[in-house]
Amino acid sequence: MARPEHSVNIEEKLAKVTEYWSPKTILEVNGLEVKAVKVKGEFVWHSHPEGDELFVVISGELTIEIRDRESVRLGAGEMFVVPRDVEHKPFAAEECQVLIMDAAGVVNTGEAESDLTASEEWI
Amino acid sequence: MARPEHSVNIEEKLAKVTEYWSPKTILEVNGLEVKAVKVKGEFVWHSHPEGDELFVVISGELTIEIRDRESVRLGAGEMFVVPRDVEHKPFAAEECQVLIMDAAGVVNTGEAESDLTASEEWI
Repeated sequence: MARPEHSVNIEEKLAKVTEYWSPKTILEVNGLEVKAVKVKGEFVWHSHPEGDELFVVISGELTIEIRDRESVRLGAGEMFVVPRDVEHKPFAAEECQVLIMDAAGVVNTGEAESDLTASEEWI
Repeated sequence: MARPEHSVNIEEKLAKVTEYWSPKTILEVNGLEVKAVKVKGEFVWHSHPEGDELFVVISGELTIEIRDRESVRLGAGEMFVVPRDVEHKPFAAEECQVLIMDAAGVVNTGEAESDLTASEEWI
């Protein structure tokens, strides 16, 4: 959980991510963590009681379905905040590279434990 | 201070920034703000007692001088965290586009009020 004292290269970190839907922590700032993740296919409906979740798409296209609201489509260079407690389900037809930012210790599947639940790991 | 309910395009926001060293808020997440800023030349030495400050370089090259430490050079796609209370001075020889993330309400020049001190504004 050491905070990097050096610069963090987003592309280099994403190159180390080998598994879909398994966010790896790359940076900590003010109690929030930035995580690099590759996604493809459909995730599970879930929400995060700990706080908001920021998505930043680096490459590809990400759709975020949101309970009782319109879905959001994000291309490279686009960001979106899923507010605390709001149920959402990410989807990507093709591989998509994303940075996520949420509170330190947040679990990727939120309250919805599944085969996709990942444990925290720094890269 | 409304939180955007829609996606935020980083390039579109940066295109609206017309003044150097004048960060404009584009997104709020968990009490932190993401700000778009264009920089060129030398800023002032300052620090932020409110918390850490994250720099993400979108284009160009940014040097961050840090008191009593080695300077950090960031290219496009590189990130760096200046910890709370650590004195720093950003510099860019040529125009550089940056996203900054810090606590809501943080002043760009920290404790060092100067001609470069900017007031908070959303774009």
